[in-house]
Order: sequence, then C-alpha cells, then structure tokens
Amino acid sequence: MLEQLKQRVCQANLELVRHGLVIFTWGNVSAIDRKSGLVVIKPSGVNYDHLYPEHMVVVDLDGNIVEGNLKPSSDTPTHIAIYKAFPNVGGVVHTHSTYATGWAQAGIDIPNIGTTHADHFHHDIPCTEDMTEQEVMGNYELETGNVIVRRFKELNIDPDHTAAVLVKGHGPFTWGESPEQAVMNSVVLEQVAKMAFIAYSVNPSLKMNPLLVEKHFSRKHGPNAYYGQTKK
Amino acid sequence: MLEQLKQRVCQANLELVRHGLVIFTWGNVSAIDRKSGLVVIKPSGVNYDHLYPEHMVVVDLDGNIVEGNLKPSSDTPTHIAIYKAFPNVGGVVHTHSTYATGWAQAGIDIPNIGTTHADHFHHDIPCTEDMTEQEVMGNYELETGNVIVRRFKELNIDPDHTAAVLVKGHGPFTWGESPEQAVMNSVVLEQVAKMAFIAYSVNPSLKMNPLLVEKHFSRKHGPNAYYGQTKK
Amino acid sequence: MLEQLKQRVCQANLELVRHGLVIFTWGNVSAIDRKSGLVVIKPSGVNYDHLYPEHMVVVDLDGNIVEGNLKPSSDTPTHIAIYKAFPNVGGVVHTHSTYATGWAQAGIDIPNIGTTHADHFHHDIPCTEDMTEQEVMGNYELETGNVIVRRFKELNIDPDHTAAVLVKGHGPFTWGESPEQAVMNSVVLEQVAKMAFIAYSVNPSLKMNPLLVEKHFSRKHGPNAYYGQTKK
Amino acid sequence: MLEQLKQRVCQANLELVRHGLVIFTWGNVSAIDRKSGLVVIKPSGVNYDHLYPEHMVVVDLDGNIVEGNLKPSSDTPTHIAIYKAFPNVGGVVHTHSTYATGWAQAGIDIPNIGTTHADHFHHDIPCTEDMTEQEVMGNYELETGNVIVRRFKELNIDPDHTAAVLVKGHGPFTWGESPEQAVMNSVVLEQVAKMAFIAYSVNPSLKMNPLLVEKHFSRKHGPNAYYGQTKK
Repeated sequence: MLEQLKQRVCQANLELVRHGLVIFTWGNVSAIDRKSGLVVIKPSGVNYDHLYPEHMVVVDLDGNIVEGNLKPSSDTPTHIAIYKAFPNVGGVVHTHSTYATGWAQAGIDIPNIGTTHADHFHHDIPCTEDMTEQEVMGNYELETGNVIVRRFKELNIDPDHTAAVLVKGHGPFTWGESPEQAVMNSVVLEQVAKMAFIAYSVNPSLKMNPLLVEKHFSRKHGPNAYYGQTKK
Repeated sequence: MLEQLKQRVCQANLELVRHGLVIFTWGNVSAIDRKSGLVVIKPSGVNYDHLYPEHMVVVDLDGNIVEGNLKPSSDTPTHIAIYKAFPNVGGVVHTHSTYATGWAQAGIDIPNIGTTHADHFHHDIPCTEDMTEQEVMGNYELETGNVIVRRFKELNIDPDHTAAVLVKGHGPFTWGESPEQAVMNSVVLEQVAKMAFIAYSVNPSLKMNPLLVEKHFSRKHGPNAYYGQTKK
Repeated sequence: MLEQLKQRVCQANLELVRHGLVIFTWGNVSAIDRKSGLVVIKPSGVNYDHLYPEHMVVVDLDGNIVEGNLKPSSDTPTHIAIYKAFPNVGGVVHTHSTYATGWAQAGIDIPNIGTTHADHFHHDIPCTEDMTEQEVMGNYELETGNVIVRRFKELNIDPDHTAAVLVKGHGPFTWGESPEQAVMNSVVLEQVAKMAFIAYSVNPSLKMNPLLVEKHFSRKHGPNAYYGQTKK
Repeated sequence: MLEQLKQRVCQANLELVRHGLVIFTWGNVSAIDRKSGLVVIKPSGVNYDHLYPEHMVVVDLDGNIVEGNLKPSSDTPTHIAIYKAFPNVGGVVHTHSTYATGWAQAGIDIPNIGTTHADHFHHDIPCTEDMTEQEVMGNYELETGNVIVRRFKELNIDPDHTAAVLVKGHGPFTWGESPEQAVMNSVVLEQVAKMAFIAYSVNPSLKMNPLLVEKHFSRKHGPNAYYGQTKK
C-alpha cells in the first residue's frame, strides 16, 4: 500500500539527518495521498540509523492506523490538522532544528528581512500563541495543529506562500506540495533563522525594504516567476 | 572482570567524540555495576584515538583501583559521589562541551524554556554554587561531587528526572540509567544550551509556558508516557 | 566554445558547495573572456549535484544567449554590470553565505577591523543603498548591478582592492581577476563577516588601528608586496 | 638537515587544517632546534594541499635562510622574537582561527573564566597594545614579536604557563615545548575563546572563582600535577 510514498517519506526523513536538522529520534516527515486521504508518517521514537520504508505507518485522516506494525509519530494529529486545513499541502515536516527552535523559544515571529527569506516565504514566519491549559491537557497534538491553523487565519497568511510556522516554546513545522518540498522548507527556515539571529545582533533596528520582499517572492513564485528552468 | 561493561564504557567514551562533545583527552564516561558496587571508568589523560576496552579502570566506591594498569580519570571521586547519592544512576558523563560549558562559566542555570529541554529534563539545569577554599584545596573532585548532590537537595530536584548539572566555572556532568543514556543526556544538554543561548539573544525577556514543560516531560516519562514504541 | 572557461566556471561553482557557502541552487559563479567579451555563467536553478561544464551558458555583454540549452542565472545582468564597470574583473560570484548575508540584512558595511580583512580587502565591505521602487520593479537584476557600481563610485573605492559588496537586504557579491579568485574572496568575506560579528559582540566600541590595515594590505598587494613566493 | 623536525613541522601545519583553524595559506607553525639554534618553518603562501617536509625552510636566529628553496613565512621574524625571548619554547604557531581572532579584533584579553582555560593557561590570554607607526612601518613582523614579549614582561606573565597571546587587530600566536604542544594550545585557545564569547553573552557580569583557576592549573602543571598517567 502506497509503497512509493513510503519510500519517499522514509528518504525525506533521512534527508533531515543529512542536513543536520535532527539527531536521535527527533523530527518527523509525513506525506498525504490526496486521492485516498491516507497519510504516510514516520513511526514514533525509531532511530534514523535503522529506518526503512516498511517502518512507515499509514493512517487515515481520523488518525486510525490503516497499515503498519509500529505506532505512528506522536505528532501525527498535528500533521493531520495541517493536511485538513491546508488543502494544497502534500508533505509536512517537524524538527527541533537549532536556530528555528531558538526563535520558537523566544516566542517571536522570524521577520522577513532578506531575500533568502523572501525567495521561499512570503510573510514573516509566524509564531503561535501560548496554548491554554485546556489545549495542553486535552488532545495536545491535535490542538497544536489547531493553534497553527488559527494563527494563519488570524494573520490572514496564505499557507501555500509561507509554508512554515514556529510553535511557541516548541519548534518549527514546515510543509509543501510534496514531502521533499517540505524538507527543503525546513532547511531554508533554519538558514533564515540563523541569518536573522546574526542580522539583529549586528543591527537591532534594521529595516527591510518591503519592495525587495515582493520582488524576490514573485521572481520564484506565481505566474510571472522567471527563476529556474521552464518546466516542460 | 566486567568485560561487557568495559566495552560499553569504552564505546560510550568514543560516542562523545563522534558527537563533537570532546577533543583531546577531555571528558570521561563511567558506569556502575550495582550488584558488585564496582565502577568502570576511562583512564586519566588517555587519547581517544587509542582507547580500547582493556584500558578501562575498575574502582570500588571508596576509589580503590580493583583492576587496571592505568590511573583512573582524575574526576573519579566526582563520579563516585554521584553514584552514592543517586541510587538509580547507572552511568555518568563529564564533558567540556562548548555551549553547556559557556553556561557553566556564566554561572547561570539553563532555564527550561522549550520542549526540547522538557522532553529530556524536567527542571532547569542547575548550576552549582561557588566552591569554598576548603572544598577546592581539600579533596577537590570529591567535593565537586558533594556540591552537585547538595544543589539537587537544596533545590529539591529529582536527579532521575533532571539528569544533568553545571559545575560553576567548570562544565557539565550528566548521568542516566546507563552509560548510553548518560551520553545521550550530554548531547541533549549541549543542544538545549545552544538553543537557550540563541533564544535569550533574540528575546531576553522570554517566558516559557509552564504547562508545556509538564506536558512534554510526561509525554516521554512516567506512567502515562506515550512517546515511542511500547517496550515488549 | 570557451570549453576551458566552462570547466573552470563549473568547478568554481562546485567550490562554493565545498566551502559551505551555498546549498540547493543558491549562488552562482561566472567568468568573462575579455577578448571576445563573452561571459560564461551557471544556469538558473540547476542543482549542484548534477552540474557539468556543458550546462554552463555563454552570454554576450548585452545578455543574449550565445551558446547553451539552459537559461542563464537570473542574476546574469548583475554580473554583466560588474564586468562592464570594473574592467579588471575576470570572475564574479554571488552567494547567500550565512554571516555575510546577515550583515547585508543588517544593512551595515563590514568594517575593516582586522588583518584577516586587510590582507584581502583594502576598504570596509560596502553595503549598498536601498533600491527605489523604480529599480526594484524595473530591470531589477541590472539595477542591482548599477547600485553596486554606484556605491563604489560614491565612496571612491577601488574595486580591484576591495572586491566584495553587500547588497542591502539581499547578500554578497564578490569578484576577482579570475573565477577562482572571486570564489576565494567569497570564502574570505564569510570569514571576516563572522569574525566581525564576534568582535563587536565582545566589544561594541572596538577601534581598529588604521596603520595595520595599510600595512597588511600592502604586504600582499601592490608593488611592495612580500607575502608568498615570488612569481616566476 | 633536521629532517625529523621538518617532518614534525610539516605535520603540525597540516594538523591546523584538520582542526579547522586555518584555510588557504593562512597560519604557520615553526619549531626550533635549540642545540643548533636553527628554526624550521613553513614557507610563505604555500597551499596545505601540497605541503611536504621538503618544503620547510630552515633559518637561523638572525632570519637568514640556511636551507630551502622557498621563502619562509613572512611571520618568521615574529617566531624568532618569541624563541629568543622565551627560552623554553620549542614550537610556535600562528593562526587566524575564528573566535580567537574575534577577541584579538575586539582588542580585549580573554579572561580566565573557566577550568577549560585554567587547565591549559594560567593567566588571562593577554592582548597586545596598539603598535605605533614606527613599529608598523619599520620591521613590522619583528616588532610584532617585540610587542608580544613586552606585554608578557609588563604583565609579569610566565610564558611557559600561559603560552598564547592575541595580537591586537590581528590574531593569535601560541607556543609550547614542542610544535605539537603549540598546535594543541592553538586548538584549546580557539575553544576557550568561543566559550568565553558564549559565557559573556549569557552573563556579562560573570565572575570566576579564582581558587578554581589555581586548582585546575596545578592539577595539570607543576610538581603536584596529578592529571594523566605518570610519565615513565
């Protein structure tokens, strides 16, 4: 069942290790097959050194295990909430990458202050609000997904154009059209988190030229994009 | 004698190198065999490039060498003090890992400001008090162990739930049920030390949601833990 | 056509990866053949894992493709503007290297505060002015080149002696007599950007001895240079 | 001539690369044969990828080339000044390692605020005074050595116990009984420079317990040292 997607999800999880974004069993990648509504996700607490496609768990959008001998990632309800709310998302990634997690712990949006950011994310990377006692003590991982989705609605951010979020006090989630795109967004997010850390250390009162944000985002995205080779 | 434990302790020492936590002869790992009350520890000042299980030194809880041709780590009395005071500890690690040592030099507890921290350590990582002249000029390494144990009692911290400490002006010690667990805690400590450094640089007045700390710690530890695969 | 130059430009692009200055498709290197006035440049958005000399694109100084099946880097007009304005330049590099980009986002010149800087760059690394709406919304990449050239003229900086610039809110460009020299300048720029970040964190009111700048620059450059082996 | 020492000096230079302290042609190591008064040193501006023992240059204490086809490092007069003033020194190293150079650019001594520092260096790492016009425009590299030696005399620091210095606005020099020891001191210096950077970022008003400095230095050095294995 979904053998090719399992391979891709497994490979995408291993890419997180290769890019230095996760250690031990931290982090997880999933992908959705939109036709069947099934999600393929990394099992919970399994080491990357011995992670193979057959370990991937298949769940439905209610979180029921459809295939697999292992428990899915404990963050599965967060992934599902994102798939349900953001219909163009094909893959979701969670990491504790160092600089992005630093910003999440700081509880501050990563401002869009450079073209590296604007090339990939249209808006500041939003940081969620503090979760309430009811949310934390209730169905915590589902509520984590809900506070993400709520934040994007409150700020009126298009999740297809800013495919990343910081969960306050926790760490980043990213997504994309595919699991590979979601992994790339995690890598870029870590870079822009580090660059913003440096930039604000050097100049706490810096100001970004908003024209550059629009220009760089539209250079790579939308109908007038002209970066890269034309897809045939 | 204790051949298997020597292999594990040797391997655990080499893991410190692999994770980038030690260079040269810095750092040491030990493990205890609780039945016999014997401790296996790295020899003092021996390079990791030529470290083999037969180099490990076996000492009793009075610090007497029971087996081995080399002098044990000069930090052996600190390890022993931890084993004596914290009965569930199976392994102890000392490193001079960069960010954790930075916080130890700063003389400040690493606050529990993120789920990466809370997933592994329940409390802030305590920093010990300054040692007195008597302590430093007396049996220094034993007294180092004593100031660690005293700090945990003063603050009423459970050493099984917060298996790490910063010795002020010196560096971190971690422990765990096993030497492997103690090494993992050293790796995680270095990560949370770096993340906290970044977070406070970005937002010096950040506040952690205490509910998240409880939630994340209990997700991985204690009777209601649900992270990872069920152990058979 | 220009087969040797294509090989060198391809290799120079791969050097950026090896030195940790670029990931994914970020960054680009070009070189000019001054006799024919033709520029060899990396194609746009092509991954470094599969980059070969035959992928390099040859353009003239009006930006017309003279040879190659792929679109040239979208930054090609910036490269061309630099070649036109600075007649001794043989190679141009653009990266989003982390610390140099941090300074570009901060919008501040990197001051010449050490001999590492002075050994390679005579002046502070200038940061360009904010671009106007007309510049951003017009022929953006050409105008990026123009703001670079204008900044060097305004500050009366010799581009042969300070072969690097920060484009505000964007990132660094460097150049050199050859593509290899331009790559080296990118590597050195990233180093001096990091060192300056550290130095100002430690001492925000530091002052460089201007005599050292002159001494170190002239030790390596100009008629009285005495660093290195005499070229035969 | 001095074939074994040439091999050791060549190897010590390559160790700088392995430890990430130098790139390109930056940095140099020398050693002295005290019987003959001859110094073996890296040639100037030669790349580490093609550095072999036969490239090493032999000079006397007046700086005359005694053997070798290449020009010696331009920093040779600095090395010689150190050998002349500090009679127990067997090897000298110069690097532009990132954090130590950052402190040198900041123009501030690296304070002895941790046992990592105290284990290897007894005193703060002194930073030299600004050089005068006469010193910079005269025999600059010799004068660099002179300001180093002068600083140690002014502060009454024992160069055998604190075998490192920051040249203001430039970078670190270290030394030791042997070239290998001098390289180790460069590695340790970079570590303590980074740790001090972190510690002061976290707590700008930190205070080191001076008792710990004495204890840790004497644990490893002098007649009552008890760290490591007893040398037979």
